[in-house]
Amino acid sequence: MTSPTYDILGIGNAIVDVVAVTNDAFLSRHDMHKGAMQLIDAEAADALYAAMPAGKESSGGSVANSCSVAAVLGSRVAYIGKVADDQLGGVFRHDINAVGVHFPTAPLAGGAPTARCLILVTPDGQRTMNTFLGACVTLGEADVDPALVAASAVTYLEGYLFDPPAAQAAFRKAAAAAHAAGRRVALSLSDAFCVNRHRAAFLDLVANHVDILFANEAEITALYERNTFEEAAEAARKDVALAALTRSEAGSVILHGHGTVTVAAVATRVVDTTGAGDAYAAGFLAGLTGGKGLDVCGLMGSVAAAEVISHYGARPEADLRALMGI
Amino acid sequence: MTSPTYDILGIGNAIVDVVAVTNDAFLSRHDMHKGAMQLIDAEAADALYAAMPAGKESSGGSVANSCSVAAVLGSRVAYIGKVADDQLGGVFRHDINAVGVHFPTAPLAGGAPTARCLILVTPDGQRTMNTFLGACVTLGEADVDPALVAASAVTYLEGYLFDPPAAQAAFRKAAAAAHAAGRRVALSLSDAFCVNRHRAAFLDLVANHVDILFANEAEITALYERNTFEEAAEAARKDVALAALTRSEAGSVILHGHGTVTVAAVATRVVDTTGAGDAYAAGFLAGLTGGKGLDVCGLMGSVAAAEVISHYGARPEADLRALMGI
Repeated sequence: MTSPTYDILGIGNAIVDVVAVTNDAFLSRHDMHKGAMQLIDAEAADALYAAMPAGKESSGGSVANSCSVAAVLGSRVAYIGKVADDQLGGVFRHDINAVGVHFPTAPLAGGAPTARCLILVTPDGQRTMNTFLGACVTLGEADVDPALVAASAVTYLEGYLFDPPAAQAAFRKAAAAAHAAGRRVALSLSDAFCVNRHRAAFLDLVANHVDILFANEAEITALYERNTFEEAAEAARKDVALAALTRSEAGSVILHGHGTVTVAAVATRVVDTTGAGDAYAAGFLAGLTGGKGLDVCGLMGSVAAAEVISHYGARPEADLRALMGI
Repeated sequence: MTSPTYDILGIGNAIVDVVAVTNDAFLSRHDMHKGAMQLIDAEAADALYAAMPAGKESSGGSVANSCSVAAVLGSRVAYIGKVADDQLGGVFRHDINAVGVHFPTAPLAGGAPTARCLILVTPDGQRTMNTFLGACVTLGEADVDPALVAASAVTYLEGYLFDPPAAQAAFRKAAAAAHAAGRRVALSLSDAFCVNRHRAAFLDLVANHVDILFANEAEITALYERNTFEEAAEAARKDVALAALTRSEAGSVILHGHGTVTVAAVATRVVDTTGAGDAYAAGFLAGLTGGKGLDVCGLMGSVAAAEVISHYGARPEADLRALMGI
């Protein structure tokens, strides 16, 4: 097996975030589940955008956020995701290139616009997401280059990819190519509602094709339909070689074979939780592919997550390498 | 004279900001004057964007920022400015509408894209701006509705409007319509380099068509080519009925006839000075059109400016009305 060219290859929905601050009453009025992600069509996106406060736009997308953070941490990173050939697509491409991520996916021309996620942040720091998938729905098998997968130590997939239909095929093709090349496959469950929409497919994938699983408490209990975190975690232990399960201010629990590593959260002032899980996964994978022990991987995840939730937006503003002393 | 429908009608360059954090070496390498605004063409904008770090996009434009802040403070506000019929134009329109500003200007179809200002913020909080004017260069007399001007207590113009050629005519038409209706005209000098580019036109305008002048120390000394702030301020006193001159952490000085009101700055942690002057003018004009005394107008300007420079981006994040107890 040759040495990998990339530490991490992310595959995900390429999305531009629109972040606005609002209140619980606005969420209720628009029938939103606080903290969750819901899919909306173009018409609903236009209507919600018209109703919501002034926002700030920045590149997002769960795995794209992780790729950006890992690149900042010094990992060699590539990304596959579908934007349109429009202004917001240009913003997405600029931002991921600016941190040194290789982004070879051709943009969609003449179809749906670049995906947007309308993110409403409440004063408690919770974010509620409304995603118009736009160009993302056209991401398919043809966008996955098996040579790129084979050249990457870890191929990291987001659960949200189960929503756009063609992406599931891309997902499976990538997992097969990774394992054929002796590489590892990581998956984030993304969102408890997403898990509920696609539970059977997720269970099959996790048991048979995933080596490294990321999930928070709501997601892992949703996947295994267990009442407690502990029961769900033990179920995950049987399915994957490595699971990194996050528990907000209670830190994270890393399961590997019969072993368990518990990692504390890093204290911070919570402004906006958007991207917390993405940043954790980035720190963890940057550590793992850099040969660090699992305790250090978890701590790198915690530090990255703490920085991202201390301000609006899903990508870091502070110098993460300085924060970690690397 | 009928009672005005709007307190403030702003006319300015309608711009979307792209804010990125960088360092002094980047500015030197790209031959930029720290703290200034320079105009760049489409090609230079593409090249600079490709070279600069990942950014956050939000609606900007000097007078548009002021209009947004004044609306948040409860003023009745309208705005005239030219965006294109594209994604960033949609962002600009959404954000200014979201705070309740009436924005009747038709977008430009099939021409240049919406203007972008590439803003580089250095660790000292200074912002250095690179503006691609795009659709703004087509703003002209036809976009100025004299009835709207006549219905507005103060028509507020930005000095940057002297850069796109057709806007100067719009500028003069608006000033004439305002005075014909017995309303007042306010002007921000915008930038010392802009003043140097158009000094003769500015001197004529200030002496003959402006009632309320906003400027910082660099701008007012540039306009009157004086070595000291005090000399320049006295020159301004002769030209306009009311001048509000800002001096960063030294607060502001308000000149009216023979009178002088000195207002302290409000202490804050400086993160990004983008929009400080715009927010000051907004607070001041909101106070003035709301019948407040000049000391209160100046203080409202100081509070608004302090909030805006405490975070990245030119528009407020905190509840300004709560901060001012109004």
